[in-house]
Parts: sequence; C-alpha cells; structure tokens
Amino acid sequence: MKTAILLTALLTGLPVLAQTNEAPLEDFKPSALNQPGQSYPQVNSQRYARFRIVAPNAQNVTVSLGLGGRGGTKLTKGDDGVWVGTTEGPMDEGFHYYHLNVDGGTFNDPGTANFYGSTRWESGIEIPAHDADFYALGEVPHGRVQQVLFPSKLTNTIIARPAYVYTPPDYDQDPARHYPVLYLQHGWGENEYAWWNQGRANLIMDNLIAEGKSKPFLIVMTYGLTNEGGRPGGRRPGGPAGTNAVPTSGTNSPARGPGGGRDFFGGAAAEFDKVLTGELIPYIDANFRTLADQPHRAMAGLSMGGMETHSITLKHLDLFSHIGLFSGGVISTNDVNTTEGFRDKVKVVFCSCGSRENPGNLNANHEALEAIGIKNTVYVSPGTAHEFLTWRRSLREFAPLLFRD
Amino acid sequence: MKTAILLTALLTGLPVLAQTNEAPLEDFKPSALNQPGQSYPQVNSQRYARFRIVAPNAQNVTVSLGLGGRGGTKLTKGDDGVWVGTTEGPMDEGFHYYHLNVDGGTFNDPGTANFYGSTRWESGIEIPAHDADFYALGEVPHGRVQQVLFPSKLTNTIIARPAYVYTPPDYDQDPARHYPVLYLQHGWGENEYAWWNQGRANLIMDNLIAEGKSKPFLIVMTYGLTNEGGRPGGRRPGGPAGTNAVPTSGTNSPARGPGGGRDFFGGAAAEFDKVLTGELIPYIDANFRTLADQPHRAMAGLSMGGMETHSITLKHLDLFSHIGLFSGGVISTNDVNTTEGFRDKVKVVFCSCGSRENPGNLNANHEALEAIGIKNTVYVSPGTAHEFLTWRRSLREFAPLLFRD
Repeated sequence: MKTAILLTALLTGLPVLAQTNEAPLEDFKPSALNQPGQSYPQVNSQRYARFRIVAPNAQNVTVSLGLGGRGGTKLTKGDDGVWVGTTEGPMDEGFHYYHLNVDGGTFNDPGTANFYGSTRWESGIEIPAHDADFYALGEVPHGRVQQVLFPSKLTNTIIARPAYVYTPPDYDQDPARHYPVLYLQHGWGENEYAWWNQGRANLIMDNLIAEGKSKPFLIVMTYGLTNEGGRPGGRRPGGPAGTNAVPTSGTNSPARGPGGGRDFFGGAAAEFDKVLTGELIPYIDANFRTLADQPHRAMAGLSMGGMETHSITLKHLDLFSHIGLFSGGVISTNDVNTTEGFRDKVKVVFCSCGSRENPGNLNANHEALEAIGIKNTVYVSPGTAHEFLTWRRSLREFAPLLFRD
Repeated sequence: MKTAILLTALLTGLPVLAQTNEAPLEDFKPSALNQPGQSYPQVNSQRYARFRIVAPNAQNVTVSLGLGGRGGTKLTKGDDGVWVGTTEGPMDEGFHYYHLNVDGGTFNDPGTANFYGSTRWESGIEIPAHDADFYALGEVPHGRVQQVLFPSKLTNTIIARPAYVYTPPDYDQDPARHYPVLYLQHGWGENEYAWWNQGRANLIMDNLIAEGKSKPFLIVMTYGLTNEGGRPGGRRPGGPAGTNAVPTSGTNSPARGPGGGRDFFGGAAAEFDKVLTGELIPYIDANFRTLADQPHRAMAGLSMGGMETHSITLKHLDLFSHIGLFSGGVISTNDVNTTEGFRDKVKVVFCSCGSRENPGNLNANHEALEAIGIKNTVYVSPGTAHEFLTWRRSLREFAPLLFRD
C-alpha cells in the first residue's frame, strides 16, 4: 500500500502525504553532502530525513525542512542532551536547502556543507533520486570548471566580477576547435556557484557528452542580481571565490524572495543585461575558443534566471538563438508575435517546471505555440517542486537540443 | 601610548597585550568576508573584532576567537535578545577561523562565509593587514582557477579527485608557450580550497606577475590528507565542488590537530606521495602546457603541507628542484648530507613562519645551511602566528625566487 501511494505520487506529481501512523524504516544513511566524518543528517530508503544536533543547553531546536506547510521538523532532546528528529514523511527527491532555529536564532546544521540560496549560505541535504546517475560523478572524461574574473565597468562599482566557465572534456585536446556557448543563470537569492554545485551542471554535461547525447559546448555561469548592489571594493557573497569582488545584495531579504515582484525582476534583468551583453559575452569570446555568433549562443536560467533569460534573449535575438526557461515562465504567443524576427532567429524554445509547480500552464502554452507554428519543447520533472532536481533534469533535457545544426 | 604598544608589538612580533582598561574606538566596519547584507562581525581600526548573534532564547553564546589562551569572547545578551561582544584587545592582522558555542553546541556565525579548516567548514573573519594590497583584487590582468577531476586509482577508493589549478593571465594568449608548475599544499584539517580562498594565491600571483616580480607559472592545489579515508563513492568535504568524489576524513578530530603526531603526518606524506607523484603530476603534465621536467617543478606547503613537501621532495629530487616550507619545519644540514644529489638538484630552499611561531629555529637553521654552502632563504612574517597571513606573505616572498634560470 505504501509503495502504491509513493508510486502514484511519483507518477502524478501529487505531494506525498505524511504517514505519521507508521514508523520510518531504520535504514538511514548519511546524506551525500555531509561534512567529512559527520554522520548526520541522514536519509532512509523511503526518503525520510533525520537530523541530530548537539546543543545540550538549548531550549528549542527545529529544522526548517519538513513536509510542506507544517513549519519544518521539531527536534526532541534526549537524555544525552542531543536533539534528534525525523521528518513526518518522505521528502521529495533531490537537493534541498534548509537551516536550523536554535533558541530563536538561525544557524546552519554543522553536519552539512553550505550552499548559497535565499541570499545566505544555507545547509544542504541530498535525497537520492531514482535517476541519480545522470548527475553523478561518472567514470567518464571530465570537463573543467574555471573561475574567471572579468572586468566590469558598466555598473561602475567594482574592478572585476567572477564567472565560472565549464569547458567540455575535449576543450584542451584540439587547440584549433571552437565551441558554442550556453549562458546559464541561477535563481533569486543564489549566485554563480549554484549551477555547478547544487546543480552539478558539469557532471551532467560530462555524462551527456560521454553518452553522445549532447554536443560539447561551454557553459558560463555568473551572478545575475547585479541590481542589488556592487560597492566599490565590494564584498563577495561568501564562500570560496578567491576574490573580494562580488557585489553584495545589500539586503536582508526574506527567504521567500524579494519584495517588489515583477518590478524587482524586471530591474534585475535590465541591469544584468548590461553586464551580460556589454561585458561578459565580449570577455568570453575574447578569452575562450568560442563560436562567437548568434547561431552558437544559447541562454537559459532557473526561476528568476528564467525571467532574465526571457527578457534578455527577446531583446537580443541578434545574440541568442536558443532559449531555455526552467521554472521561469514561458515564451508566449504574444512574445512571438511582438518580437521582430522571432520565427527566423530562434532555433530552440524550451520551457520546464516541476510536477508540483504549474505544468498545466506550460502544457497549454506549448499547444498555443505549436498552433501558431512555433516548435517548442516542454518538460515536466516528475515529483519535484521549485527545487534543484527540477533544474538538473531540465538541463539534462535541454542540452541535447542545443546546436544540432 | 597605545600606538607605541601596537607598533612595538608589530615590530617585535610579541603578542599584543589586552587593554581591558580602555574602550575600543567606535569605528567598527563589517568584515570583508561577511555574507551579503550582513553587518556583523565587525573590525575596528585597532583590530578589535565585534560579534553580534541573534538567539533571543539562548542561555549562553561565546565566540572561539579572542586573545590567546583566554577561551574566546563571551557575548552578552541585550534587552533586545541579541548577543553582542567585543574581543578584549586587538587581534592579529589577517584571516582567522572561528566558530560559535550556542548553549553547548558548535555552530557557525550566520554573518560570515565559511572556510574549511580543522576538518569542518568554519566561520572566517578578516582583520585588514597593513600590507593588504598584495593579496587584494587588483586592477591587473587576472589568471584563472580551474577545477580538474583527475582519475585516482592508486588509493583504490574513488573515481576521481578534484584539484584546483591556477593558470597565469597570459596562459591562454600563446598556445605554444609552456609553463613551470608549483604544487602547493594546505595544512592539516584544510582542503584544496584553502590556498585560493583563505590564501588568495591567485590574487597574490596576479599582483606579483603584474609588477614583474614573479615569473608566470601554474599552481596546482589538491587534497593532501589522502590517508584519512576515501571511500567508494566517497563524500566530498563539503562546500562548492561540483563533485561527490573527495574522500572524507572519517574522523571527528579535535580542532588542534590529529592524534598521532609525527606518525600521522608521516603516514599522510607517504599516502599523498602516491597520489601526487603517481597520479596528479602525470595528469597535469598531460593536460596542461607544462614544462614537464625537474628544473621547472616546485613544491611548497603550509604546516602539515610543509611536512609533506619536506618528505616528498627529498624522496623525489628527480621531480622537484624548488622547495618551500611555510610553518612546516626546515631543510636541515642532516637532510642535505643524507639526501643523494641534494647539492646538484635543489635550486631553491625556502623556510618561513610567523614571528609568533619559532623564528629562532629558522634563523639558526639558515645559518647552519649557509655554513655548509647551501644557499637558502628564511622569511619571518611580522606580527602573525600559525595562520593564513603568514602563509600569504610566505607565497609572496617565495614566488619571486622560483624558476629564475
């Protein structure tokens, strides 16, 4: 019965209901993202997560992660002064951000590594997905991820900005070969680390290329919230970077997202447009062996990065021919009809989301586009919400469509 | 009077005494390593650090950082439920790891970024150094830092290990040019991120090269505690990596270092020797444009990495010609006399430490080596202990000596 419920949920994308009347199976194992030597948090074969926090004199410890709408997972202190708790039911497959509340303060779980989301370095946990092989480190040739520091004067605030560039495994084998480029953007509150850490974009590409499913191309990942600040000698968003140059957000925005809604995202796209098209693309084309023309340049992004992709690509169809929106809206019939040259210039339109998001909208839009003669691809990630497994799978589905001519 | 005390301390390297009878100057500014939008921790012009932690229901909050031997800094809860505290006196210049104790539990400061040290992701704070320009992001050409995943079969546990490779600014300008290589190792409890994040090795090199003080060369940084584990499908040490392949330590070693002393470090060097000389060096020489011979290969390391450098270079003088030990012991007269070919094969011997460490030993050893005809360089970092500013400065002094022939 339990299996049937889980299977139904996976197939339909409906939220899995909590099974508070049954004890979880005691086959918990450490999460793959734990810090060295740390046994907790753990995950069992049913996708329950268990947390263990040492804080013997604390009054209250809760974990933000838990079943939707229930306020996370409350831990209980044992006689040994250690706080332990298990989610009330199975979590969705994939990567989740979370944090602790200890006596009213927000802290990270000392058991796990940190990942930048919600404009802070958060704890992360990985619930193994049934299709985890596509983003696993495989016994295949590996590309590299390079940090570049590109000069940024247009926003007039900092000396240089970091970007990370994935080069495919054969990039250094033939010094005469040039490659197409995908510009790939993170979501609100994330940064230029998101796609190659939470997203595992490099490993996904290594695997796709090894299987002959994707052409090799470069992926460029940079910080897309350039409207939120960028002070002289500005501070970096924390964590490994080897530079002090990344602008800070200058805000203490709540985890759910910034105020301002569409205006905010419109501002983000307009400011980021300047950096991307005015500074980063010219830098990449001058410093890497790219095919520096419109047919060989794609842009995609997740969530806010999808909205940026929508805005920037439609404004610059002289620069981009392939468009991917991951949980970031759609290319509508109105976009097609009001954007000069769309039918001639755009080669790929791809829109995706998780089954727990709004797949109905995407499917309806897909039909509407087809009806006016615009071929396009829709992908719905089964059993996932507005989280990174949706976007890992979106990249897996999007990459094979690129640069086929 | 205060200025005189500080100046004397800087010049002599003596610990600065606490000045509990004087209030610190109220010119505190956020640390450069803070997370975006976070105002605390802060540092004032006298190098006092101030911390602010929100945990309204906590009973006790302390910060591990503070004047030596005094057990850190105890915070006090204000009427607003916020804990605040200031170090009892000035901190040493440079980067410091630290963490919080909240009601008996170890957590990071949510205000700062995280840096891997003591086998955990720790909080970090930067006390601006008087000579900070040499490690600052300059308006100069920038090299890149690349993540490579090199196959590792000798230790028979994982598919691939990550290493980070600094390539100098002109590396991609002339595809025919080949470069020397420095293998640069972190200390105990750190990992392959240390040198390009805490250490800022890439920015130091960018600046030295721009000033014409150092020849351009590659720097290769990988994980050197390969004897501590490395499980099949092993976990990474947390934080950004884009891979799941790094071995874990498998221990919960105390912050002061592992048990076992010399035996432990000897084991680390022997195991790491296999990975470095058997796997990483061949990979780098096959995949980068290196000058793949002994005259163009250097090795250096800090603390445990210095001990590894000592052991591995003396065993493989067919591979290495330049040796740097940063707070990691010395090349002794006995080493010279018992290592065949030392006088012919070794071009540079460099030993350094902080003025608060054991400079007397280093200076005595320097004289002893000179007395037997071995030219060597000693550097003592003023006003620093066994911490990263010592090692940033050591790299600044070491790099210009390399590959001059």
